[in-house]
Amino acid sequence: MNTFGNIFRITTFGESHGIALGAVIDGCPPGLDLTESDIQIQLDRRRPGQSAVSTPRDEKDRCEILSGTFDGKTTGAPIAVLVRNSDQKSADYQKLKNVFRPSHADFSYFQKYGIRDHRGGGRASARETIGRVIGGAIARKILSQKFNLEIVGFTRAILDTEFEGFDRDFIEKNPLRMADRDAFDTALAEVESARDDGDSIGGIAEIIVENAPAGLGSPVFGKLESALGAAILSIPAVKSFEIGEGTALSKKRGSEANDPFSTDSDGKIRTERNANGGILGGISTGEPIWFRAAIKPTSSISKTQKTVNIAGNPVEIEVRGRHDPILVPRAIPVLEAMTACTILDHAMMHATQNFFVKF
Amino acid sequence: MNTFGNIFRITTFGESHGIALGAVIDGCPPGLDLTESDIQIQLDRRRPGQSAVSTPRDEKDRCEILSGTFDGKTTGAPIAVLVRNSDQKSADYQKLKNVFRPSHADFSYFQKYGIRDHRGGGRASARETIGRVIGGAIARKILSQKFNLEIVGFTRAILDTEFEGFDRDFIEKNPLRMADRDAFDTALAEVESARDDGDSIGGIAEIIVENAPAGLGSPVFGKLESALGAAILSIPAVKSFEIGEGTALSKKRGSEANDPFSTDSDGKIRTERNANGGILGGISTGEPIWFRAAIKPTSSISKTQKTVNIAGNPVEIEVRGRHDPILVPRAIPVLEAMTACTILDHAMMHATQNFFVKF
Amino acid sequence: MNTFGNIFRITTFGESHGIALGAVIDGCPPGLDLTESDIQIQLDRRRPGQSAVSTPRDEKDRCEILSGTFDGKTTGAPIAVLVRNSDQKSADYQKLKNVFRPSHADFSYFQKYGIRDHRGGGRASARETIGRVIGGAIARKILSQKFNLEIVGFTRAILDTEFEGFDRDFIEKNPLRMADRDAFDTALAEVESARDDGDSIGGIAEIIVENAPAGLGSPVFGKLESALGAAILSIPAVKSFEIGEGTALSKKRGSEANDPFSTDSDGKIRTERNANGGILGGISTGEPIWFRAAIKPTSSISKTQKTVNIAGNPVEIEVRGRHDPILVPRAIPVLEAMTACTILDHAMMHATQNFFVKF
Amino acid sequence: MNTFGNIFRITTFGESHGIALGAVIDGCPPGLDLTESDIQIQLDRRRPGQSAVSTPRDEKDRCEILSGTFDGKTTGAPIAVLVRNSDQKSADYQKLKNVFRPSHADFSYFQKYGIRDHRGGGRASARETIGRVIGGAIARKILSQKFNLEIVGFTRAILDTEFEGFDRDFIEKNPLRMADRDAFDTALAEVESARDDGDSIGGIAEIIVENAPAGLGSPVFGKLESALGAAILSIPAVKSFEIGEGTALSKKRGSEANDPFSTDSDGKIRTERNANGGILGGISTGEPIWFRAAIKPTSSISKTQKTVNIAGNPVEIEVRGRHDPILVPRAIPVLEAMTACTILDHAMMHATQNFFVKF
Repeated sequence: MNTFGNIFRITTFGESHGIALGAVIDGCPPGLDLTESDIQIQLDRRRPGQSAVSTPRDEKDRCEILSGTFDGKTTGAPIAVLVRNSDQKSADYQKLKNVFRPSHADFSYFQKYGIRDHRGGGRASARETIGRVIGGAIARKILSQKFNLEIVGFTRAILDTEFEGFDRDFIEKNPLRMADRDAFDTALAEVESARDDGDSIGGIAEIIVENAPAGLGSPVFGKLESALGAAILSIPAVKSFEIGEGTALSKKRGSEANDPFSTDSDGKIRTERNANGGILGGISTGEPIWFRAAIKPTSSISKTQKTVNIAGNPVEIEVRGRHDPILVPRAIPVLEAMTACTILDHAMMHATQNFFVKF
Repeated sequence: MNTFGNIFRITTFGESHGIALGAVIDGCPPGLDLTESDIQIQLDRRRPGQSAVSTPRDEKDRCEILSGTFDGKTTGAPIAVLVRNSDQKSADYQKLKNVFRPSHADFSYFQKYGIRDHRGGGRASARETIGRVIGGAIARKILSQKFNLEIVGFTRAILDTEFEGFDRDFIEKNPLRMADRDAFDTALAEVESARDDGDSIGGIAEIIVENAPAGLGSPVFGKLESALGAAILSIPAVKSFEIGEGTALSKKRGSEANDPFSTDSDGKIRTERNANGGILGGISTGEPIWFRAAIKPTSSISKTQKTVNIAGNPVEIEVRGRHDPILVPRAIPVLEAMTACTILDHAMMHATQNFFVKF
Repeated sequence: MNTFGNIFRITTFGESHGIALGAVIDGCPPGLDLTESDIQIQLDRRRPGQSAVSTPRDEKDRCEILSGTFDGKTTGAPIAVLVRNSDQKSADYQKLKNVFRPSHADFSYFQKYGIRDHRGGGRASARETIGRVIGGAIARKILSQKFNLEIVGFTRAILDTEFEGFDRDFIEKNPLRMADRDAFDTALAEVESARDDGDSIGGIAEIIVENAPAGLGSPVFGKLESALGAAILSIPAVKSFEIGEGTALSKKRGSEANDPFSTDSDGKIRTERNANGGILGGISTGEPIWFRAAIKPTSSISKTQKTVNIAGNPVEIEVRGRHDPILVPRAIPVLEAMTACTILDHAMMHATQNFFVKF
Repeated sequence: MNTFGNIFRITTFGESHGIALGAVIDGCPPGLDLTESDIQIQLDRRRPGQSAVSTPRDEKDRCEILSGTFDGKTTGAPIAVLVRNSDQKSADYQKLKNVFRPSHADFSYFQKYGIRDHRGGGRASARETIGRVIGGAIARKILSQKFNLEIVGFTRAILDTEFEGFDRDFIEKNPLRMADRDAFDTALAEVESARDDGDSIGGIAEIIVENAPAGLGSPVFGKLESALGAAILSIPAVKSFEIGEGTALSKKRGSEANDPFSTDSDGKIRTERNANGGILGGISTGEPIWFRAAIKPTSSISKTQKTVNIAGNPVEIEVRGRHDPILVPRAIPVLEAMTACTILDHAMMHATQNFFVKF
């Protein structure tokens, strides 16, 4: 199931060490100005080799729009976008051919399909997310034009340190995509230490959606938090989804947890707090939508690990390859992309409901 | 969007104070023995009035199978099941007609639809989950017969107390569906105290799926944790979904977090730990699938709260009605039901893949 | 697969001799005035026993709305509608329990499901279409209010006689739903003759959709003729679908077949002919949409027929029961209903595209 | 909506004069031997320039598999296949930029999207069907290996001449894909005469599916004839779909029309005739599935036609370009491809039902 969405649909394809990766975007409204540079700017945010704490695999990830635009505008036809692989080093993986890497998809893919592409994880590789970023780049351009909607993602926690500071301008200026300028140096040292140990570390990403209109989400199985949760939990290495205060809300009494309504100075009904994350009853309220996702440490580590081979015999492995010591910073553009696709899809679906609203 | 699933599909309908609630189950395999009692046993686990710490609304929730069976067996035709409401007290809600209850769906439904059924939350009421439990009852019967699969849910935490004990037999014998016998008295006192204060409290539910076969889940947008997350996050009051160790996994280094493979005494490849919750790369491994969901405190509390009415003017409300002081115990059968529907749907989809697997 | 539609979705359930039949309509816009009488008027047009040339089975087919409306208006919640069976005579079918009726679904259902409800065809009965008419009644009310759209169906041919006259007022005044007043007496005699012989006859229905807006239909797999074809070919006994002139168009040269464009006196671009049936490239042009469907003779005839039983042994049967000598007149409200559901679904989907059309 | 299918899904993209066309095939079972040549053989059957009665546009239509295979076998990952355009002559279309060609999609696309790619019809071009043939090539290879299933298409009629002869070996040996050797010369003269007049002619294609298993199709909205009808009616220029005898069946009495069951010499239950086309109640019976589709004359003719331009002013046009005088022969591989995709999709869905059939 490589298609996401109901109305704005993205279909992704491609493997880590295959010829190319990409996406077909279907249901994109016509008339949008769209060129490769709109997409490239987002691909560059997720591409490997962008810093000392990301994998050194050298992929430029240049995209090519194959269809769906004419004279620089979308036509309503499906938009196919291609990114060719160039720096595959499949030989690195030859020795892993018959071994199941711990916490990777090797074993489960083999159980499901009876066959697996062992080169860099094949379809289970995080390179698969290129197609998502392509779709997200288009979605967020539409959302920006239509609603002035913005999606901001940043690293909320690394290991068990949660960062409190929020300096928005700093996020894209540091390789960890942290918003807390003061905590950066210590955090970077932590990441470098893990990298130097041949190890990896996890963290928590947070996404904020500003200017999302009220009314998005379709009870009961199309609730917005359900759709966002599905989108985010489909991203490699994501282990949790918390809408608003999430788990913290379950530790409160109702009288402390409820978000009281009041009217602001413009006469607009607002909630005084937003512990529910901008969604009530599965429908957006017009407040910012915010959520967090825990991202596990990179499974590929060069430390020696115990595992078994296909025959079931115990072996020791060191997953050399070229890996990120922490996935969070490069995952953030992917979380943003999936958020954009989800929000746009629901905004388009919402248009079907209010079409007839005035009888 | 009131339909859930791809192959095993449930469509639910009905409101809190309407005539009836129910579900249509489509795609159920033929030949299953099925009578009302198979469904009733699960409905009784979620019905109101079952203990002193659940709402006193007196609904027997008797179900009637309207179609899809013949001589006590399913035929492959859609199974419609009906539960009529009997103890609606809509008058309780008359005074709430023009008021937005904090942290309820009143405001967002009104924003989306321009109209709302104010009687007990209408479609946004937790009574909507009756249809889910109907579908889940059928799904778990099939899963039990086919795989000997079992789904166990229990209350993992109340407020900030996480319970460590696990006495499986105790779960269905206490009104809080706790598995920790020793912690029960203290926990009950906590719930009763909140109830007596006219307040409510939240908690965390945990679900374990035993004997789930390997191979379930469809990369990349049909990953099993994504499907389970969507299912669980569509349940009223659920604020988070954590697969396996979830957030805790993000606080570890890879060398501690990875689940090593080894071969057990039967020659079966297993993971020595199961921090990933029985899923790798979006596909079940054959280990138990386990996850947690945070459930916020009941939004309806009789304590006085600040809010606004439809005109935007500030008002104070006390949501009298009849409410659960904690939602977790009665939510557990619903979480189990959605888990069953999701697992069965994926098991059926998996059949499409291995149909041709031997060329 | 008992759900039809993408945005406006109907899920039908129920068998010929079960407890009840019905439908759940999901995605209906909020704010529509809707009561049972809006639906009943269409159910009465398809109900049995309405004339001497329809089955004498006496079903009042009274509907009950169970959910989805409040104070007489739709709320956006799913609308469940129920019709209980009352005049089942299952005993009539006892002798057919182990016999495969020719050109019925008995054999193929048994092949697929390994089990069958032999009472009146079970789910394969034309009584299943009650759920479709329920959905169609709601769809056409919306289409009428929104676009002043009208759907007119009539009997275009009986056996090999094609009727040329078109008197619109006559259609609902004669039991054959013919539009040709002059040809009626002869046609009725033909039907009565077949009925008196214990036989049945086929015919062709034609549907015209007036005031359908331009722009409906989604290339390439959601073309409007493809969606309409799927809808109409899902109706029992329908054996063909021809859009516009259909087969006749294939017998022409392009220079005769093409519909020239010109501008009418209001400055509106129109086609001078409409051989393509109001659809070009899968998208409605704004011209009337029209198509035809061939409906085979009723398979249930009381004449003696050769067949086999479940054991494969030859037997002779006479399908007594209570059957229509011609299906076309009672099928027409069903064709109209499926047309309405399809057109509305596409009109709602179209709203998603022009939402963003002005950049 | 550029995705077709439920389990075996094809998503197509690309325009007549764009950079490339192609398809992403999702849900393909793993383990199938697949290389470009499996696909190329089918693309060659539909490609332009293959005879004197097809368009002289010179496209080699060489395909490239970008993903989804490893060591020559499918892996269960999505299969992206690309065909680059090479012989676009967009200049031919410059003069048509502001004109609506009669019976083309120019006008309706403009109505829907407010924008159109006028170069050769853009997405509405029959070149779009390349993606379908790619998907069909994979589907038919699976069907052949699994069921020994074969799909045979041929030209049943040209203009009003229906061909009776059936010489299967002749079909792929003549440029009209006729099965009637004796009628060929006359028919060819008819086509050449139209071509030489700058005109075009229509015809009827027939498809036969041999060795389709019983049990395919899902009542009530997934009936096999409904799914096939939708598939075939989504192909450019198709104006009708008739299952089995189709319209001819509506001209009979039930006693003549019904297909009697009997047991053949192998003890297998068969129908003595197959007027219903191998489907009863929406489910395949195990008899050959057969249907016909009327294909209108090519809309592009070089004869002078009346039309209007975007401003609504009358103009005369001659659609020069490079066009087929008859579409039927090159459409046949496309009809076969859509048939293969539909049958495979339903065979895979059927696997979900009989998974549990033995309780």
